[in-house]
Parts: sequence; structure tokens; C-alpha cells
Amino acid sequence: MKILVMHGPNLNLLGEREPGIYGSDTFESINAEIIAHAQKLGFECEVFQSNSEGALIDRLHAARLDCKGVVLNAGAYTHYSYAIRDAIAAIKIPVVEVHLSNIHARDEFRHNSVIAPVCAGQIAGFGKYSYILGLEALARLLG
Amino acid sequence: MKILVMHGPNLNLLGEREPGIYGSDTFESINAEIIAHAQKLGFECEVFQSNSEGALIDRLHAARLDCKGVVLNAGAYTHYSYAIRDAIAAIKIPVVEVHLSNIHARDEFRHNSVIAPVCAGQIAGFGKYSYILGLEALARLLG
Amino acid sequence: MKILVMHGPNLNLLGEREPGIYGSDTFESINAEIIAHAQKLGFECEVFQSNSEGALIDRLHAARLDCKGVVLNAGAYTHYSYAIRDAIAAIKIPVVEVHLSNIHARDEFRHNSVIAPVCAGQIAGFGKYSYILGLEALARLLG
Amino acid sequence: MKILVMHGPNLNLLGEREPGIYGSDTFESINAEIIAHAQKLGFECEVFQSNSEGALIDRLHAARLDCKGVVLNAGAYTHYSYAIRDAIAAIKIPVVEVHLSNIHARDEFRHNSVIAPVCAGQIAGFGKYSYILGLEALARLLG
Amino acid sequence: MKILVMHGPNLNLLGEREPGIYGSDTFESINAEIIAHAQKLGFECEVFQSNSEGALIDRLHAARLDCKGVVLNAGAYTHYSYAIRDAIAAIKIPVVEVHLSNIHARDEFRHNSVIAPVCAGQIAGFGKYSYILGLEALARLLG
Amino acid sequence: MKILVMHGPNLNLLGEREPGIYGSDTFESINAEIIAHAQKLGFECEVFQSNSEGALIDRLHAARLDCKGVVLNAGAYTHYSYAIRDAIAAIKIPVVEVHLSNIHARDEFRHNSVIAPVCAGQIAGFGKYSYILGLEALARLLG
Amino acid sequence: MKILVMHGPNLNLLGEREPGIYGSDTFESINAEIIAHAQKLGFECEVFQSNSEGALIDRLHAARLDCKGVVLNAGAYTHYSYAIRDAIAAIKIPVVEVHLSNIHARDEFRHNSVIAPVCAGQIAGFGKYSYILGLEALARLLG
Amino acid sequence: MKILVMHGPNLNLLGEREPGIYGSDTFESINAEIIAHAQKLGFECEVFQSNSEGALIDRLHAARLDCKGVVLNAGAYTHYSYAIRDAIAAIKIPVVEVHLSNIHARDEFRHNSVIAPVCAGQIAGFGKYSYILGLEALARLLG
Amino acid sequence: MKILVMHGPNLNLLGEREPGIYGSDTFESINAEIIAHAQKLGFECEVFQSNSEGALIDRLHAARLDCKGVVLNAGAYTHYSYAIRDAIAAIKIPVVEVHLSNIHARDEFRHNSVIAPVCAGQIAGFGKYSYILGLEALARLLG
Amino acid sequence: MKILVMHGPNLNLLGEREPGIYGSDTFESINAEIIAHAQKLGFECEVFQSNSEGALIDRLHAARLDCKGVVLNAGAYTHYSYAIRDAIAAIKIPVVEVHLSNIHARDEFRHNSVIAPVCAGQIAGFGKYSYILGLEALARLLG
Amino acid sequence: MKILVMHGPNLNLLGEREPGIYGSDTFESINAEIIAHAQKLGFECEVFQSNSEGALIDRLHAARLDCKGVVLNAGAYTHYSYAIRDAIAAIKIPVVEVHLSNIHARDEFRHNSVIAPVCAGQIAGFGKYSYILGLEALARLLG
Amino acid sequence: MKILVMHGPNLNLLGEREPGIYGSDTFESINAEIIAHAQKLGFECEVFQSNSEGALIDRLHAARLDCKGVVLNAGAYTHYSYAIRDAIAAIKIPVVEVHLSNIHARDEFRHNSVIAPVCAGQIAGFGKYSYILGLEALARLLG
Repeated sequence: MKILVMHGPNLNLLGEREPGIYGSDTFESINAEIIAHAQKLGFECEVFQSNSEGALIDRLHAARLDCKGVVLNAGAYTHYSYAIRDAIAAIKIPVVEVHLSNIHARDEFRHNSVIAPVCAGQIAGFGKYSYILGLEALARLLG
Repeated sequence: MKILVMHGPNLNLLGEREPGIYGSDTFESINAEIIAHAQKLGFECEVFQSNSEGALIDRLHAARLDCKGVVLNAGAYTHYSYAIRDAIAAIKIPVVEVHLSNIHARDEFRHNSVIAPVCAGQIAGFGKYSYILGLEALARLLG
Repeated sequence: MKILVMHGPNLNLLGEREPGIYGSDTFESINAEIIAHAQKLGFECEVFQSNSEGALIDRLHAARLDCKGVVLNAGAYTHYSYAIRDAIAAIKIPVVEVHLSNIHARDEFRHNSVIAPVCAGQIAGFGKYSYILGLEALARLLG
Repeated sequence: MKILVMHGPNLNLLGEREPGIYGSDTFESINAEIIAHAQKLGFECEVFQSNSEGALIDRLHAARLDCKGVVLNAGAYTHYSYAIRDAIAAIKIPVVEVHLSNIHARDEFRHNSVIAPVCAGQIAGFGKYSYILGLEALARLLG
Repeated sequence: MKILVMHGPNLNLLGEREPGIYGSDTFESINAEIIAHAQKLGFECEVFQSNSEGALIDRLHAARLDCKGVVLNAGAYTHYSYAIRDAIAAIKIPVVEVHLSNIHARDEFRHNSVIAPVCAGQIAGFGKYSYILGLEALARLLG
Repeated sequence: MKILVMHGPNLNLLGEREPGIYGSDTFESINAEIIAHAQKLGFECEVFQSNSEGALIDRLHAARLDCKGVVLNAGAYTHYSYAIRDAIAAIKIPVVEVHLSNIHARDEFRHNSVIAPVCAGQIAGFGKYSYILGLEALARLLG
Repeated sequence: MKILVMHGPNLNLLGEREPGIYGSDTFESINAEIIAHAQKLGFECEVFQSNSEGALIDRLHAARLDCKGVVLNAGAYTHYSYAIRDAIAAIKIPVVEVHLSNIHARDEFRHNSVIAPVCAGQIAGFGKYSYILGLEALARLLG
Repeated sequence: MKILVMHGPNLNLLGEREPGIYGSDTFESINAEIIAHAQKLGFECEVFQSNSEGALIDRLHAARLDCKGVVLNAGAYTHYSYAIRDAIAAIKIPVVEVHLSNIHARDEFRHNSVIAPVCAGQIAGFGKYSYILGLEALARLLG
Repeated sequence: MKILVMHGPNLNLLGEREPGIYGSDTFESINAEIIAHAQKLGFECEVFQSNSEGALIDRLHAARLDCKGVVLNAGAYTHYSYAIRDAIAAIKIPVVEVHLSNIHARDEFRHNSVIAPVCAGQIAGFGKYSYILGLEALARLLG
Repeated sequence: MKILVMHGPNLNLLGEREPGIYGSDTFESINAEIIAHAQKLGFECEVFQSNSEGALIDRLHAARLDCKGVVLNAGAYTHYSYAIRDAIAAIKIPVVEVHLSNIHARDEFRHNSVIAPVCAGQIAGFGKYSYILGLEALARLLG
Repeated sequence: MKILVMHGPNLNLLGEREPGIYGSDTFESINAEIIAHAQKLGFECEVFQSNSEGALIDRLHAARLDCKGVVLNAGAYTHYSYAIRDAIAAIKIPVVEVHLSNIHARDEFRHNSVIAPVCAGQIAGFGKYSYILGLEALARLLG
Repeated sequence: MKILVMHGPNLNLLGEREPGIYGSDTFESINAEIIAHAQKLGFECEVFQSNSEGALIDRLHAARLDCKGVVLNAGAYTHYSYAIRDAIAAIKIPVVEVHLSNIHARDEFRHNSVIAPVCAGQIAGFGKYSYILGLEALARLLG
């Protein structure tokens, strides 16, 4: 049973980028933790990152055929990409929305998620551990 | 005389994606109908689809050299892509905006088209037939 | 099979009224083209114009008994007549919304159509040819 | 002692129009119930319906001379007719505002009544029984 | 058959509180009229007043077991208590919303009722008689 | 040289309607003053009043053929009738907007005139004398 | 009987400043016309111009002692000077608000006059003739 | 090490209340699962529910002395109780915000959490499992 | 002559709660200062604190019988409790609104006081000394 | 130790200007009371009034050199003078904002103070006594 | 060839005022740098500062006669002085808008410049060097 | 020392695209001027253009390693790309925002720059010369 963990724009710089907000673990080490935890839950796990909205949509489309569910941190696209929202609505597998920071406690524009209405649920504010909770939630949805 | 029919994000999943809203004809069969109708109107017709905003802009730019007009369904980009709007304004050929669903009867955020002010006109709500009407309108504009 | 083409306020002045926006064909000649095209599509076609909101509602009510569908240009009532909206919702025949100008490219207040949510679809921006496209769309809906 | 029960646009289609919202009793049978109840309360009762804003205003003006009070369902005009509002303010007899459906539980635009500030009170959501309650309220106001 | 008439905050001061707006009948005498009218309609009637949002919610919860319906004047909580709204939605018995004054004719903030969307209907502006009309409406709903 | 003085809804009740706001001169006496002043300025003057939006539009249309200019008090239609606005824009004669009361000093909704952008100018707040000033202004525009 | 005609900021450049909007008569010639017309109406007339908000307020204060009324074109201060508004409210003589251009037909920010609620009335859109009409209105108010 | 799981208004009706949204497990069985899971994580766990804003604040205050952290579902108070927000800010232990339903996919008013800016993070949309994820998150924060 | 000093939610934690904003004096010591100052002004002074909106309303109601005036810090309820506002309006004794911090210099939501329109005046930003100034103001109002 | 008491626009008319709102004590007598009270508190006190925004800024600038603090009633400039706000932020001495009337209980536009975020605190609604309280507050801040 | 560099309110305190935002160079030294740079570009350069809106307008008016262009830092007036905007529109010489700080990165109210639509361009965020860039831009415009 | 000059969407059509707004110099010739000026300032300069948001982000990420600063014209992405904003915040080198046209003088939607809060400063309205000024500003920041 395969799942997808998808990172949106600027998340490839994790560890280096604004560590006061996003933590100092590197992107690679976080992905390793994610994959290990997914395996513990019985999932094969692919990690995908892109800064391109179109590439994220393409991968979501493909996931409807090769994955059972998605844990998605859409980065800043969370706040305006109605195209990603439509992609999530178009595929039939569950998508769990996660965020490293508590988006509801930051800039006004980050309070609104345009993808939330088509996701299964939202987890925000627990740093890299948001992904682990997202995997747990997805396991429950697919269980 | 060549024209371009351009599909934006998620339209490649037509037939599979939310058929209650978008219909159950496949993307391929709709394109075949479009091409056939265009030929009846005396046009050579290229169909282009991409989920990438940048690729759509690139193709619009190219169209100013190799096409006489465009029928454009910009999908969700309709509602926020000021970059596509600027691309339409930058080329001098007419662009007819079409939508499968009646965007004015759906979610609030779909009521506003940021590309409308630079398009020749808008046709929305007639399913795949919106494209056929768009071709007819373009033929009249180029006639 | 009879259909109704209904014109709202100020459309009786077509040809004379702001020709830069609405064109210089007269109201009479446009109606003649409409009726001819409707006949080509196999419809008997009645044309009705009024500047009165109440008279437009009355005629829509009557249309549920004597017509199979409506092509409606509600003029400025498009933007505030919730009473016409309720009339359209109250009758069971399809109504296609048309506009001469591209309302989405004009004054802010013209961007919103309060009748759109209860119409089958919207065609705007193709001058008198919007009516012809509206007839084609209605023919398809009734086909 | 005569009173007026006034119905605004589209209410003439009661029984046929969106019965899920407005009920399936016909306009005629509801009016019969209204008149019977008014008589039980000691009123002579005239029922007036029009789809025309102007005609409704004309009848309200006349009511200041021939009636002691009004039960008014202004239909969709409730939400934008400042002209009817001014008519109610101009006459000196009490006007009770009634609605078949609970307007506060429907579309956003139906939540606001522009006539409410000049009416004695509002009754909404009890189907045809809203009129009966309106008669009772008017009886009390005139008592 | 038992029903509940519930008064929200500050209504215990009726008769003394802003008599120009709320009338000069005392809280006790109004309750006596309410109970008498309920009995005439064949109901056992309990009257409950509290200034505490939590106590009002508790009593609504209990009402789902010991009452058939509720006439509710939520006072100022009408305008912001989403918790009371959820309580009404959580119980299955009908709730009729009443107000002494015409809230739609007063301060802007009083125009909106956050509980209206989950109530059966609304009666406002007839002073203490709003409760009597509410009882009549409830009787009809339970009839 | 003929001009039109047009009164919108509820102005027929002048003298009787809210005299604190609109004054206690009767509609008839004000019209007599208007006609007399117009004659002094060398105009033939027709006075027209209707409560119907459609009738006001019809008369404006006719005025393009039989009058040189209009003094218009559109009453409450001032604040929402985009149809009257379009009628004014459609005819080529100047229209001077007048109001008895200072609309900018009253309810918020009366501050905005949707017809102002297509009128020559606006005069508000001088009671019946606003019409006289409107005639003076029109005389200057036609002079 | 003395009156004050007060010009706000930038009006000293009349004739030179944006003549397409404000006309090409010079400030001096307009003032001469104003004074002449005031004399015809039986007034002594002082003309005062300043670009300073404080100086305008000082002169308004003084006017309560040495003038019977004011014709005021507050220029751009019209749209934000609550201090001038308070000055007008503080003095007891009538103030007639005038504008050369039709402020309701220009930029959105010019539609709102913060001084209007404390002025007797408003005249806008008749070029220099707005002042003449303002004098006439003031004469009537003082008559 | 003791923690608090706090339920706000109407959550005591879980299992019975709108099961389509909130699930059909009873409040008691969910609490049993919560306590069991907390024990597995090494916590002593107290469950507290109240419909009263004041009682919830009182218990939060006490928790600063007898608990190490809180998992809080504030129910509808989430959307307007600035008093609960201040209580969370006033105590120094971490508070994890949880919701049964995906509040971002429901009514507009439920999209905003006024307590989010002072909570550690937010988990929404996973039914009763949101509490389990909340416990996991709290364990991590206290780990 | 007795007065009431009333503290709303979370003020019981003064001294411990966010001392950077609210100061480090304890609730008890501040109350002692308040009582001492009140006595110096010739008042008997009762201090009341509650986190419950209902309890605050109950105490305000009682105050109309046993106190001559109130100094009220309603804490976060200041910003949304229309019920407390109505309680203040319902009693006839003067209420002086005080705040420890300058609410106009903090979060946007703290700028608005829904109780201000029914209070005698507002004092904010002087820490515990705001209460002392409030007592002085109340003494003047009752003097 | 010198302090400045500064009055903004229109306050020179105190006693004469809208006495229902601002009281009937004259500007001179209020200033005398202010100076006397300041002396009792051990301050030398200069009183400054101007209707000019620029003059008020100039005096604030000078105060940073010759005064220890300011009691400021900025009049209507309170609501829009970001220039005065910047002047207060630019000087390092404390500024106490005072208002004669309770600005939060008057017109909507008076609820917002653009200078509040840079003042020490705000006192409003106690008539001339607001200045006395402001002196007391300033004494405490400088104590 | 003479140009004007104009400083608005509070800029005379440069070096002393909020140096974290505006830098610690004194007003005098900055002006010296400006004049020196202007001379290098071949301009005679006058520097003008005032805290008075009216004085700034007066100097702008004069500049149309004695200068070829203006570099303007309008300080806080940038955000609300429509009078200065009109002054810039009234004169025919180019005006370059400059700001020391990046106004788009500060308080919300500083994001909007009401003078920008009538200026040639805007330079913000480079400290005193913004003036130097402004001189360069002006030289290019006049070149 | 290398810097990056980055052009966003549609800027590749410079010279051809809406020359009335953007000028008629070709993209190639402008880039040549930019590179020449950069060399004069002692920079190696790379020019990068893409219509793809993702590609722009990728290049910004790379720039943190191979460049010392960026001059960025983000085209229409300026107004909605929070992803580019986050990319700028994520890299530590200074970014100067430039625009050919004065965005504050055009369509409302162009007034707001979502990237401005994380850029060093903004230069807009000087045509191709905006880039030259941007280079000068960057040189100063890196100097």
C-alpha cells in the first residue's frame, strides 16, 4: 500500500530557511523520519517536492493511480492555488493537509487555506511532527 | 487559418473528474469533437492542455505568431492568474473565454474572472458545448 | 416548438443607444435576425421587450405554459433584480442569459449577475451575435 | 374595518413554485384561508398581488385611505426595494412584514430586509401560517 | 404535552429595563400571560430565564427529553452565541425564535441572528405579544 | 423649448409624507411653482410622476424626442436603479439630478446615487427649492 | 448682510489647473462673477481662499460673528477633513456645499463628502455656475 | 504527569448530536478511548466538559497548577471567545486545539479560530481520532 | 454610599498573567489599593470578579439596587458581550469602563468596545492606575 | 517640571460649540482649571491651541525639548492625522490622549483613534474633567 | 535648471526620530548630500520642509513657476492628503515620490499612497539614498 | 561579485507588448543596457526570465549560493505569489523590487505587492530606467 508525502514551494530549503519558524532539521533528515514512520505504519512512502504549481498538480493526478492517500504540505500555494484545490477534488483518494507552523497564528493571509474544503482534515503547528501526525491520520482514514 | 483551443489545469481529467459538474465525456472525445467542429468552420485547430501556468503563458505567447485566435478554458487559473491576464493583453489576437460549468452559479470565488476584462467575451455553463459555441464566436470575430 | 427571446430595459433603443458599446444595428433588424435564426433551428420565436421589471416577470410566468425555453438579456436588471431571479427559479423551462457587451470587462457593478445562479449558462460580449449563440445553446439544451 | 394583505412578485405561482421551499398549497386556497381568518378577527380583508414594484407602491398609497393596516409579503423586493420602504414610511397605517420561508436561514442576500426598519414587526418561516400570524399581530396592533 | 419558553439575558428586568423599547409590563405578569395562553393551546408550559449562556444551553439540552418544543428569546446572545446555535441544532425539537422589539429596525449589530438558521422561524417586534404569536406558531408546528 | 421635470416613487404624496423631512407643501402646489419658474426661464415644462421604474424609463426614452433636458428626482430609485441610469446614458439630452432632502446627511444607503455618474450634476437638500435650482442649472446647460 | 464664499485647496489655480475638469475661467474672473451675483441678491460678499485646513477653520470660526452664511467649496478636504466638518457644526450659520465638478461621477474617493452631513445642502457639477446656484440657495435659506 | 482533555459546549451530546457531522460514538465511549490512549502515552488524564464559558476558563486557570498540558476542543466558543483565548495566553502550559469536523470545510464563521493564535497547534477533521492525535502532539510537546 | 468595582475574565490572575502587558502587582494588592482609594473618596467599595458572563450580568443587575455606580473592567468580554452591554443599559447607575492596557494600541480586535456606547466614559492604558482614575471619574459623576 | 496641555481644532470654541455634547464651560475657564490642577500636582503648565495640523506638530516637536509630557486632545485630527501620530512617535516624552465626549459612543468615524497606538493611554467621556484625569495620569507616568 | 526637494511632516527630526526606522544621519547632513548630488547632476536644488499641509501645497504651486521638477517625500500626508494629490495634478512639472523606509513593509495604513497616481514613479526603502535615486530618476525624466 | 536581474511573466515580450504602458525598447536591448550598467558598477550580471512561478523560485533559491543580490521585476506574480514571497524570505541576499510602470497608478489589483514586505525596497514607474535605479540601489546595499 503506497502513499505520497508531497511538499510544496520552498520546503526544499528546510533547515536553512527561517529556522526560527520552520526548525533547523534538514529537508533530507525530515524526509528520512517520514519514510521510516510510514514504514512502521505499513506504508510504502514516496516523497515528492516541487516549487512548481503545475508539477504538484501533475503528481497529484498520478497519485490517483499509484497511491492510496496523500499527506500534503502545499506551502504558500495553500493560500491561493484554486488549481491545486481542484486537483485534490478531482482525485478520489484522501488528502491530509499539514503545516509545519501554526498558520492560524501568523500573518493574516496565512489564516485561510483554499485547499482545506477538499481535504480530509488539517494539522498545523507541530513542526516536522505535523507530518508524522499526518501519516497517523492517513493510516486511520485508510484503515 | 489556424486557431488554438487551450485547456488549463485539471481539464485533462475530464470524464473522470467530478462528472456531476463537468460531464462524463472523456477529454479525448471532447477534443475530437472540437477539432471536427473547427474544421467544419474552416479552421486548422490545435488543442493544448497544461496544468502549468507558465506553460499556458508560453503557448499563448507563441500563438500570437502561429494562430489567428484562441478559445481558452483557463480552469481555476481564471480566478487568480493575473499573469495569464497579462499574457492575453500582450498578444493581439482575440481570445474567447469558455467554461464547462456556469461559474456564476457555483462557489463565490468562481464568480470572478480576472481574465475576463481582456477577453473578447465569455461563454459558461453549457458543458462541452461551451467549446463549440466558443468556436462559433471566434469564427464570427475572425470572419 | 416555441421559444421566447426577452429583452430587458433600454434594449428597445438598440442602434441609437451608446453605439460604441452596443453596436449600431437597430433593435428591429436584430430581432429579425434572431427570428430568422430561430426558425433555421426549428423554433417558433416570440420576441418580447419591456422596461418594466413586473412586465418581464409576468411574461416569464406565462412562458412556463407557452414556451419551451427562454433566451434572456435582462439589461441592467441583471445586476439587482432578485425578483426576476425568483421568477426564473419558479418556472421550469431553461433560461439562457445573454449580454451584448462583455459585462465582466465594464463597470464593477456589472460584473455580478444576480440571475446567473438560476440560469442554464451565460454568453456575454459578442454583440448581437450573443443572441444567436444563445439560440444555439438553447437548441442544444432542448435537443 | 378593512385591512389589506399584499403579496409581492412570484407569489401568484404559490403551490407550483419551488414547493420544497414554499409549500404546495395553491395561491387561491391560501388566500381563502387568509380571508376566512381575517373575518374571524372581525376584518374585511382585500388580497392584492402584483409582480410590479410600482403597482405595489400605488396600492400601498391607496391603502392609507381605505385600510387600517397591511400584512405584507414583499417577496424578493424585500431585499432591495427602497421605494417600497419609502412608501411604507409615507403612509401612517401599520404594516406587518411576513415571509413564507425563514429568510434568515437561506441565501445570504435574503437575510437583509430593507423594509424591516419601517415595518411594525416581522414574521418568517411558518409557511402559509405566517400570514395567519401576521393577521393576529395586526389585530393586536389595531386592537 | 410540555413546552419550554426560554428567556435569555436581561429579560428578567422586563418592565424596568428601557421601557421605551421593551414595554412596561413586568417579567412576572408577562410570564403569567404566556403560561395562560399556552394552557389555552393545550400545553403544559415551563418558563426559564438565565443570564448565563451555559445555563441556557444546559436547559435546551434537557428540553430534548422533557419538552416537545421551545419558544426562545435569546436576548443579546441572539447576535453572537454560536454555542446556543449549536445547541438548537443538536436537539431535535422545533425552536421558535422571538424578540420583543423589531431587531431589524434597531442597531446594525442586532440585525443579524446567528441562531436563525437553525430555528423554525422568527417573530420580532410585537412586544410581549411576540411570545403569544410564538406559542401559536409552535402549536401549529406540533399540531 | 420643452423640458421635463420628472418625479420618482412616493413623491406624489408630498405634503402628506414625512413632512419633517420633505416639507408640507403639496405635490400640486410644488408643481405649480416649478411650471411657473420654468416659464419665467422660457421653457415649456411637463411634469411627470410615476411610482413605476419602467414608466420612468419609458418617459425618459420619449424625452429624447420631445424635450431638450430633464430635471429628475428619482426618489429611492436613485440608490439602486441601474436601469434608470442606463436610460439616462442612452438619451443624449442633459439630466440634472435633484433631491428635496440632503441625501448625504441621512441613512447610509441614501449617500450613494447610482445615477449620478451619468447626470450633469446634483442638487440636494434645499426642499422644493432644489427643483427651482435644478431648472436654473438646466437653463444654464441649455443656454 | 454679509456672506462668505470660501474656496479650499488648489482652487487658487482655477483656469490653469486641469481645465478639462475645472474649466478655463480664471480664479479672479470667477470671483468677480460671484461677487457681482451676490450683490444682485443683496449681499455683501467676501471671498476667501486658502490651501491650509487650519486657516479655513479659523475663517469659518470668524464667520459666525461677521457673516450670515457661507458658500463653501472645500476642495479635496471635502473627502477627509473631519476638522472642517466639526467647524461647520460648531458655528450656527448655514453652509452650502458646492463643487465645480460632479464629484459623484469621478474617482471613488471623491464620492463621499465628510462635511455633507453638517451642511444645508450640496450642489455639484455645474462648473463655476455651482457657486451662483449656491448663492441662490443661500439667499433662499436666509430669506 | 497529568494532562487535561477539555470539551466545550454541546460536546456532551456526542453520539446523539448531528451524527452525520460529529459521528455516532457516544461521549462516554470517546472519553474512555481518550483516557486509555493517554495512559498508553504515560499520562494521567482528566476529562472536563462544560457548556459554560466561565467554567471552562476557571478549569483552564486551575490547570496551570495541576496539569502539564491541555487538549482543547472549545466547540463553538472557538469562533468568538476572546475570554478563553486570554485564559490560554494567561497560563503557561501548552494547549493543543482539536476539532472533530474539518472546521475549514464548513460554514464561513467556523473557518476562523480566535484561540488559534495562542495555541500550540491545530488538528481538525478526523472525528474522535482528532483527540488521539492531539494527545500524541501534546506528548511530543511535553516530551 | 456604596460602589462596585467589577473585574471580568482572567483578571483574577493579575500579577501572574502576561506581566509584560498587565504588570506584576497581584490581584489582591491591586484590590487593596482600589478599596483604600475608594474609601479616601468617601465610598464603600465592593470588589467583584468572575470569569462568567452570566455572573457579571447578575451582579450588574443587583448593583442597580445596592450601589450608586460601577467601575468596570470587562476584560475580553469588552469586545463581544452585547449581553453585558444590554445589562449596563438596563440599569440606571453610571458605569465607568477601564482597561489596564491601552486596548487601542494592541490587536485589532481589542480596538472595539461593544460596551462603550452605554458607558459614561473610558480610561485605558495606565495599568492598575486606570482603576484609580476610574474611581476619581465615578466620584465626579456622582458628586 | 513643565508639561504641555494641547487642544486641537475647534476646541477654542468650547462653551459655545454644541454645548449638548461638549458642555457650556468656556475655553478660558477650562484652561484656568487645568492650570490650577497642574500646579497642585507640581507642574508648570502651558496651554496651547491651534486649528492647524502643522502648528500642532511644530509644538509637539518643541515639547520634546521644553516639556516632560503632554496631555493632548487632538479633536477631529484624532481620527485621521497620521502626521500627528508620527510626531508623537518621534518625540520621547509621554503623551496622554483625552477627549471631552465618549468618542466610542458617537459617530462610527469617531470610534477609531489613529494616534492611540503611540499614546500612553486614553481617557474619554468625562467632559472637562477628562483633562484633569489626564493630568493625574501624566503625573503618575512622570512620578 | 532648478529643482525642488520637498520634505513633509516630521522629517525635520531626521537623525533623532525613530533611528531604527529612519536612520541616524541628521536632517542637515542629508540635505547637504542631496544638494551636492543634485549639483553633480547639473541642477540647482532648493530644499523645503514643512509640517503644514497648506505650506506644502503653497510651495508645490510656486514650483510650477520656478522649478522643473520635484522630489517629494510627503511623510504621513502620503497616506491621506488628497489635497496634496490635487496640487501635484494641478502643476505640470514631474514629481518623483520617495520614502526613506519601505512603506509597503510597515503598518497596513502606510501601504497606500494617495499621491502615487499623480506622481511619475515611486522609490521606497533605501533610507537617505532614496532621495539620491529620486534625483537620478528626475534627471532622467528631465533629460 | 555576481548579481541576478530576474524578469517575471510576459516581460520577454517587452517592446512588443502594450508599448503605451511598457515602452518600445526590446527585451534584448534593455538587457544589454542592464548588463552594461551592472558592469560599470563592478558587478557580473546574469539576466533570467521565466513565465513559470516555479522556475522563478528555483532560480531565487540558486541565487543564494551564486549571487550577492537580486533586482526583481516579478511582473503580475507581484500581486499574488506568496510562494515567491516565501522564496525571497528564505534566501538571505537582498532583493530590490522594480516595476516598469507605476503600479500604484494603474488597476486597483496592481497597487498591492505581496512580495514588498520581504524586499529591501521598491522602485516603480521609470520604464526601463527602473532597472538601472534598482542596480544603483543594490550596489549601495552591497557597498
